[in-house]
Amino acid sequence: MAAPTFLVIAEGAFSPETSKTANSAIRYLPERVVGVLDSTARGRTAQEVLGFGGGIPVVRTFEEGLALRPTALLIGIAPAGGQLPAAWRAWILAALERGLAVWSGLHTRLGDDPEFASRAAARGAEIRDLRRPPERLTVSNGLAREVDALVVLSVGSDCNVGKMTAQLQLVRGLGARGLRTRFVATGQTGILIAGWGISVDAVVADFVGGAAEQLVLEGAKDADVVLVEGQGSLVHPGYSGVTLGLMHGACPSAMILCHQSSRELIGDYTGRPAWVPIPPLAELVRIYEDAARPVHPSRVVGIALNTYDLPEAEARARIAAARSDTGLPACDPVREDPAPLVEAVAAAHAAWKAARRTA
Amino acid sequence: MAAPTFLVIAEGAFSPETSKTANSAIRYLPERVVGVLDSTARGRTAQEVLGFGGGIPVVRTFEEGLALRPTALLIGIAPAGGQLPAAWRAWILAALERGLAVWSGLHTRLGDDPEFASRAAARGAEIRDLRRPPERLTVSNGLAREVDALVVLSVGSDCNVGKMTAQLQLVRGLGARGLRTRFVATGQTGILIAGWGISVDAVVADFVGGAAEQLVLEGAKDADVVLVEGQGSLVHPGYSGVTLGLMHGACPSAMILCHQSSRELIGDYTGRPAWVPIPPLAELVRIYEDAARPVHPSRVVGIALNTYDLPEAEARARIAAARSDTGLPACDPVREDPAPLVEAVAAAHAAWKAARRTA
Repeated sequence: MAAPTFLVIAEGAFSPETSKTANSAIRYLPERVVGVLDSTARGRTAQEVLGFGGGIPVVRTFEEGLALRPTALLIGIAPAGGQLPAAWRAWILAALERGLAVWSGLHTRLGDDPEFASRAAARGAEIRDLRRPPERLTVSNGLAREVDALVVLSVGSDCNVGKMTAQLQLVRGLGARGLRTRFVATGQTGILIAGWGISVDAVVADFVGGAAEQLVLEGAKDADVVLVEGQGSLVHPGYSGVTLGLMHGACPSAMILCHQSSRELIGDYTGRPAWVPIPPLAELVRIYEDAARPVHPSRVVGIALNTYDLPEAEARARIAAARSDTGLPACDPVREDPAPLVEAVAAAHAAWKAARRTA
Repeated sequence: MAAPTFLVIAEGAFSPETSKTANSAIRYLPERVVGVLDSTARGRTAQEVLGFGGGIPVVRTFEEGLALRPTALLIGIAPAGGQLPAAWRAWILAALERGLAVWSGLHTRLGDDPEFASRAAARGAEIRDLRRPPERLTVSNGLAREVDALVVLSVGSDCNVGKMTAQLQLVRGLGARGLRTRFVATGQTGILIAGWGISVDAVVADFVGGAAEQLVLEGAKDADVVLVEGQGSLVHPGYSGVTLGLMHGACPSAMILCHQSSRELIGDYTGRPAWVPIPPLAELVRIYEDAARPVHPSRVVGIALNTYDLPEAEARARIAAARSDTGLPACDPVREDPAPLVEAVAAAHAAWKAARRTA
């Protein structure tokens, strides 16, 4: 089956901040996005709304979207809790009725909905729930320590700060240095982009580490560097458990710390006011290295800042401050050439390889 | 319905170390255990095998067990991964056929097994899966910080070191000091004993903290002190995520650190050799307090040692060493009077209450 082309549903939420899956599809799979649906859209193209994405059209009605001839609908926003907005049911049913595939990263699995399932079956249409974990998972047991590749995990100050993007932005530069990379997706958007992976926050809690271990073992098969997409944050009041389980399952030897420079509090992910202050970067480095140590020691090798919402001068100042505060390479891997992070990972790979030879 | 009386299945594994659920039922619900089934039993009574439990008989065949007239079967061991041993199916079916209830803490849910479900339905027998989480769970958001009770969480060096027991052993002493307590169960054995709770390791990973939050809100309703059963360990390679999610969801103001004195490595929970060294107690205190701080500061107020497998003199030496190494009250709350821990929690409650008045 050819890879689908998507009409991306980002209803009421298409913006740089609030439509992560949609935005990542546009950034990393632009040739497969025929349009974005948002009846409240603040622009007529992805470029106007996001600052990237070129002429990908933004439409205000489902019918306009269908006229763009997608082969699939992609649910492009992932609200906290993951519940399916009731108004979207009609679009999904209409899409399935026409034989279009429906891809979704919501917690609520569309394939488990009897009406969707029977409509899909009747029309031979595919429903792909990106968060559905595999049937057989186990508890992790340190197997990822032993793979023949440098494992790099992106970690963060909060959710939605650029942990997936930081890793994806390294692929080209590491390749140019002769290093074979494999991106390991741990969330629905990463799975959409990579075509494989496990949404580790959707598995039974006991098996988060085991899912990460399984992914790293698979990712390391033909790679020098395994770039594991991080999730959540160790200081996040709601998602910290997923973060630590992922760390101890993946057993990274290097970490990249990701932060959105303008953010001072953990995001208001449940609608209540934000209340947890984000620690300074140097403190976060210590928190992550301390948490890794008892199971598998790991070093933060670089800082990836997300400065999309800051003017150029302030972004540069924040990046310089991150560098001096932590003593680590730092850059915004989207705004700038990610070379400092590429070099940091390449150096970590060389050091890891040397240590392995002498071991 | 009257509370059931149990024939406890601990086949091949009835011992102080390997049958946690069975042993806890015998310790905390002895009047409801009519017997234990283990064809390989090393004794004829619970007392002979465990060192407690008095004359509760240990039988070698299922038929002998039925002759003790239980009203329910309790699956009394919880192997890593939670798979149901195939040989037990016949016993479960025979029990349901006779109208006996079947209670289970396994990951594999008996109620989802079509053969068990139809047999239970046909005979009007109950299947109670203690690990089955409630339908509606959410992400946690710090609500547990605001309850009108001191929240105490037991934390540990490893799984199965006495985190549930430490809390249960405090109930009587705190009551004698005029403090109303509520034990909050977060695992299948605790749920069996308390009659309510959520097995937090069985929920979707994103919702571990939310499950803990919901339990603390319920537990705090008529209590001065909420005693939350901890899970896993922050340094456990397989279960650390559950531990951190539970901590950040429950928002304890005080913690009790639990450790089995004879253990030096994290247990071989998957059958592979154990490989993670358990840090010294003072280091564990720091690890737990550091992990709590960004979301809700918490202090370790006492050490609960499990010394059941040590001779008296060595146990006393370990307890004294724990006290001097950490500067905290320490005792074995099963071997000894748990008064030092009771006093530590009562003092933490007084301090919490004073801080609340001035706030």
